[in-house]
Amino acid sequence: MKKLLNNTDDLLTDSLKGFARAHNDIVSFNVQPAFISRSSPATQAKVALVSGGGAGHEPLHAGMVGTGMLDAACPGHIFTSPTPDQMMAAAQAVDNGAGVLFIVKNYAGDVMNFEIAAEMLEGDSASVLVCDDVSLSAEHSTGRRGVAGTLIVEKLVGAAAEAGADLMACQALGERVNKATASIGVALTSCTVPALGKPTFDLAEDEMEFGVGIHGERGRETLPLKSASEIVADLADVIEAELNIKSGQQVLLHINGFGGTPLIELYAVYDLAAQYWQARGVEVIRSLVGNYTTSLDMAGCSMTITLMDDTLTTLWDAPVHTANLRW
Amino acid sequence: MKKLLNNTDDLLTDSLKGFARAHNDIVSFNVQPAFISRSSPATQAKVALVSGGGAGHEPLHAGMVGTGMLDAACPGHIFTSPTPDQMMAAAQAVDNGAGVLFIVKNYAGDVMNFEIAAEMLEGDSASVLVCDDVSLSAEHSTGRRGVAGTLIVEKLVGAAAEAGADLMACQALGERVNKATASIGVALTSCTVPALGKPTFDLAEDEMEFGVGIHGERGRETLPLKSASEIVADLADVIEAELNIKSGQQVLLHINGFGGTPLIELYAVYDLAAQYWQARGVEVIRSLVGNYTTSLDMAGCSMTITLMDDTLTTLWDAPVHTANLRW
Repeated sequence: MKKLLNNTDDLLTDSLKGFARAHNDIVSFNVQPAFISRSSPATQAKVALVSGGGAGHEPLHAGMVGTGMLDAACPGHIFTSPTPDQMMAAAQAVDNGAGVLFIVKNYAGDVMNFEIAAEMLEGDSASVLVCDDVSLSAEHSTGRRGVAGTLIVEKLVGAAAEAGADLMACQALGERVNKATASIGVALTSCTVPALGKPTFDLAEDEMEFGVGIHGERGRETLPLKSASEIVADLADVIEAELNIKSGQQVLLHINGFGGTPLIELYAVYDLAAQYWQARGVEVIRSLVGNYTTSLDMAGCSMTITLMDDTLTTLWDAPVHTANLRW
Repeated sequence: MKKLLNNTDDLLTDSLKGFARAHNDIVSFNVQPAFISRSSPATQAKVALVSGGGAGHEPLHAGMVGTGMLDAACPGHIFTSPTPDQMMAAAQAVDNGAGVLFIVKNYAGDVMNFEIAAEMLEGDSASVLVCDDVSLSAEHSTGRRGVAGTLIVEKLVGAAAEAGADLMACQALGERVNKATASIGVALTSCTVPALGKPTFDLAEDEMEFGVGIHGERGRETLPLKSASEIVADLADVIEAELNIKSGQQVLLHINGFGGTPLIELYAVYDLAAQYWQARGVEVIRSLVGNYTTSLDMAGCSMTITLMDDTLTTLWDAPVHTANLRW
């Protein structure tokens, strides 16, 4: 394993300390229990948005804390759920009377711990479960995983909360965005979890993992490595069938890198993807390209489509000022 | 070689097309000769800043085109200088009467081609040569290479140009920033140039390349892989000696990833670096952490320090709105 770190136990805390130090105009780091919150809390009552999950997906979620998006994020150990006491502490720190909305990726540990935190929390709370990964069947026993679409939910609900939407409206919006969003990814390499010290799975030089997860788990199937155009078509076909996208539909297209793939490749994939949708009469009206929901150093990318309407477009365009997403 | 691409010849153009499509509110792509320029040219006369160089360093330089930074960027093929006609065309497209400043990384091909372009250009032009890589001796035959400090020069001079500084003032500022800036990097892996199809150099599992360049060339020396704290100290020691940094000095600290290293590691390195300088009484007043001056998919990072004063700090803080740098 070749990584820039002192030891595997310290990597996450060192990283969070560095993150908070580099962006101390935007975020603060509470060391114990660990959470990142806005350094300038909202001045007027608003629904507090709290997300979190295992580390290793940076800049998700901590990089999305700031005006127009999250109020706090709870990082667990790498690929490990944060604990209920982290979530409780984060929620209490940012709740200013309008209630707390938990945005939770659909993994058993995250779901359970956020439920416990919500039960323990005095005051109103609600949650949105994100399950945008369409590489698994909708009937999968534990449901579909939450992946890169989580950022879309956080951005759109964050804008609504900032504009004064109440707790139930934020929850309903989050659920609507989740339903309108589908993602699927492909890996060219596995990631290497520091505590394990070697790639989680093996891929031959001519193989790729299709429908891969973001925790070093294998995907839907191992396939021969294809060209970028073929990969784009394979990913988009699954999304198209899932969302039943019609010509004339306006969409947001998000090409997300998994951490080890540089921008030169991601922008090329984006162009091919935009062409794919354009050829089907689908209008790509908003875009996001970059390494946002990563899986440590995994090479590869995912495609996310969100079906847009005027309301969602206005929310997407609303100002956002976080460490790693700004406009 | 495992990359997301159709074929090596198309990667750059596909990527530039995708880049311009994803950010069409900020940039336009002129296909032949290839350059990226602001989609909304400056409305009042200002010095036009044109940079460029071989591709493979994304988001440098095209990602730095926009208000408060570059007016245009010329991408050569991967790790290959752009041609004089690209530079000429870009300069002519953005020159609005106040002259053109070329910001050039110190590589023989770039220097020669930008000189030819400047000679052919009607109207005033000047250039700033960036040579911030202190891994090579100042007496190296072709001089020191331009690396991650280039972004600092582009940001600070970009702010000055936007504020109305004239051509000579912009050039003088660029030279001052270059002198006040030192960078050095370490690679954990080589990059893989698509046309070559395999890593440019080999590193064993327990080795790192110290003082590495950003074009897949070997560095100052191959060393045993060290801990992040030791790597930070080794990098910082070279910079400290070079810039003769004294206690009380205010600096900008830039931790740059080479493309294959994820944010979780870069922020950890940043924290250790900030501690290093703090322990020496050096005040880190501004920071930038992320993959900005990359070498395709190379794993590793560089440290850049710029000695700051009030003028430079004000220029750094000035608004910037590019595809990949914004505040």
